[in-house]
Amino acid sequence: MTRARGRPRDPEADRAILRAALELFLERGVAGTSMEQIAKRAGVGKLTVYRRWDSKEAVLAAAIESARDEMPETAPPDPGDVPVPTLVRQTLPDLAEALTAPRLRAMVARVFGESASHPELMATYWEHYVVPRRRTVRALLERARAEGTLAADADLDVLIDMLVGAVLFRLLQPEPLDAAGARAYLESVYRHAGLLDER
Amino acid sequence: MTRARGRPRDPEADRAILRAALELFLERGVAGTSMEQIAKRAGVGKLTVYRRWDSKEAVLAAAIESARDEMPETAPPDPGDVPVPTLVRQTLPDLAEALTAPRLRAMVARVFGESASHPELMATYWEHYVVPRRRTVRALLERARAEGTLAADADLDVLIDMLVGAVLFRLLQPEPLDAAGARAYLESVYRHAGLLDER
Repeated sequence: MTRARGRPRDPEADRAILRAALELFLERGVAGTSMEQIAKRAGVGKLTVYRRWDSKEAVLAAAIESARDEMPETAPPDPGDVPVPTLVRQTLPDLAEALTAPRLRAMVARVFGESASHPELMATYWEHYVVPRRRTVRALLERARAEGTLAADADLDVLIDMLVGAVLFRLLQPEPLDAAGARAYLESVYRHAGLLDER
Repeated sequence: MTRARGRPRDPEADRAILRAALELFLERGVAGTSMEQIAKRAGVGKLTVYRRWDSKEAVLAAAIESARDEMPETAPPDPGDVPVPTLVRQTLPDLAEALTAPRLRAMVARVFGESASHPELMATYWEHYVVPRRRTVRALLERARAEGTLAADADLDVLIDMLVGAVLFRLLQPEPLDAAGARAYLESVYRHAGLLDER
């Protein structure tokens, strides 16, 4: 599957490379992954990878970005006058289900694990995964504040960190959650952040 | 610095090995570290390492445990009738200072990064670093609940995750905090968790 210089890109080879790169990254991290291994697992020649990306870090960043679609959706845009707790409850089952996926756990672990040595991977993840979710949570918090269920002087950035941080932190703890456990956990976190009514 | 089988352990060699193993782990993670590299950096023969530990994972777990002493202290045991906010304020400056250390950032990143592939390292970290800190925060939350500044039905485990999770999450974000930023951040997190009076 070698290609002559100048020939148009092969989208199937690109997809195979990105998929292989992501698998290796999740299994072994950056230091445990090489361009050779990526090419081998993708079933392409090493040159095919190098023609498209000039370092394993570049392939890995592209692989992380491309996996965006597999990951849990952020909540739908705020639909008018539905109360915040109702909106939150609508998104909880899917989010809880997503949290139990070993692949999400591995992705979060690896990206955070490389944050000191490969900040560019963290930056890619941040832009494509974290920022959209923070925006959604912020919209909910702003509405809760406007509706008076959240204190007027609440620090929204810190509350977002507490909410997202708790979930990510729980995700990486020994003893993974099952779907029911994840749902109960999320309910409790949202409640303490002021986004769910008391039961 | 090779030693004959059966000779007593050389504590200095052990310390050099653990120090080298921790440095390599922080720089490269588990997959990027080998027994050869640990021996080389410690300035000992490979056999010296193998006589004491039978895998790199075992050396790394011991190295993580041994570094416990360098990391920020947990708060002092609850001294009688000092109000919770006063206790929290006493520990904030040291904690804020500790949060700005690149080494702590690297340690948290690596340990969490290996949580999916090497749960035994996460378990070691959990036991020696996280459990003692959770215990301290729990004692503070229980007192706050008893004093009525925290709701009687607050879920303490979730609140601890929100507090610790936010700080760890913030630690791994792009844009590190300086000491003043870390202090302001901690104050805000503690306030939202119900452990500091409103200003």
